[in-house]
Amino acid sequence: MESLRPKINVVLFEPEIPQNTGNIARTCAATGSVLHLVGPLGFSIDEKHVRRAGLDYWPDVRIRTYDSIDGFMSENGDKKLWYFSTKGLHCYSDVDFGPPEVWLVFGKESAGIPEPILKASPDTCLRIPMLGETRSLNLSNSVAVAVYEVLRQSSFAGMKTAGQLHRLSW
Amino acid sequence: MESLRPKINVVLFEPEIPQNTGNIARTCAATGSVLHLVGPLGFSIDEKHVRRAGLDYWPDVRIRTYDSIDGFMSENGDKKLWYFSTKGLHCYSDVDFGPPEVWLVFGKESAGIPEPILKASPDTCLRIPMLGETRSLNLSNSVAVAVYEVLRQSSFAGMKTAGQLHRLSW
Repeated sequence: MESLRPKINVVLFEPEIPQNTGNIARTCAATGSVLHLVGPLGFSIDEKHVRRAGLDYWPDVRIRTYDSIDGFMSENGDKKLWYFSTKGLHCYSDVDFGPPEVWLVFGKESAGIPEPILKASPDTCLRIPMLGETRSLNLSNSVAVAVYEVLRQSSFAGMKTAGQLHRLSW
Repeated sequence: MESLRPKINVVLFEPEIPQNTGNIARTCAATGSVLHLVGPLGFSIDEKHVRRAGLDYWPDVRIRTYDSIDGFMSENGDKKLWYFSTKGLHCYSDVDFGPPEVWLVFGKESAGIPEPILKASPDTCLRIPMLGETRSLNLSNSVAVAVYEVLRQSSFAGMKTAGQLHRLSW
């Protein structure tokens, strides 16, 4: 169990549903994670569209964009990329997400991460356990579960772990 | 660390946004959790509206409804209710969610759980750590993080922890 919090990078390959990306941006804002959006995207991220889709947390998040998976890979293929997929061989909470940086990659809502990418890296393909094959979590929920396992493993170093009542007091 | 998976109950007090409840129903379907919806709700859950809101997983989830928080409490106030709130004093992953059953309670999107309820039960008020006071997770993301911490503590007993490629093979 490390006490230093890693720098978390959340990578979305070709996300399709803006509300999911909006919720994920919110998770990134709340946790200081960097959001990497890998196109083509299923929606526009110009200011007007982002506001319309309720992506209120957009300005609070560090966002990097890429034209394509190839473009992302040519820049980051040397990193240890953890691929989240229902097809993964390893349970996400069984691996050690150590500092200094962690890369968590998620596929598009309709199809997940392309199988050739998974097949080339079986040891870093992680599954979030579910009851069966057919049911799966919403994309933004999968991201939250993964990010919080990384944070838990680092004992939430530097984060606010207790709150206060507003009108009453503890 | 128990190897028996507890029966998880997810309780939503007065949820306002149907897409959130839909995503939470999906999490419940994927994990075999029971969903308790405590009114008044901010949306209709008759069949037509549920379908329109994209609540595709609705038929796969065991759902119980209550007219009010008082109604829920009169039936379940004797249970150990874990309240999730940014105001909570304890980190959610520091407590032991043991079998046989776990009750996870979440407040409405705009206001959280009423403070008098929190104040009456400080030891069971849990916070999911975030960077500061002002930013918070989307409701469905908070539920997913909580449910998966319960499951992780029970070693995902009885769940499918590894998957298979579909077109290629491992």
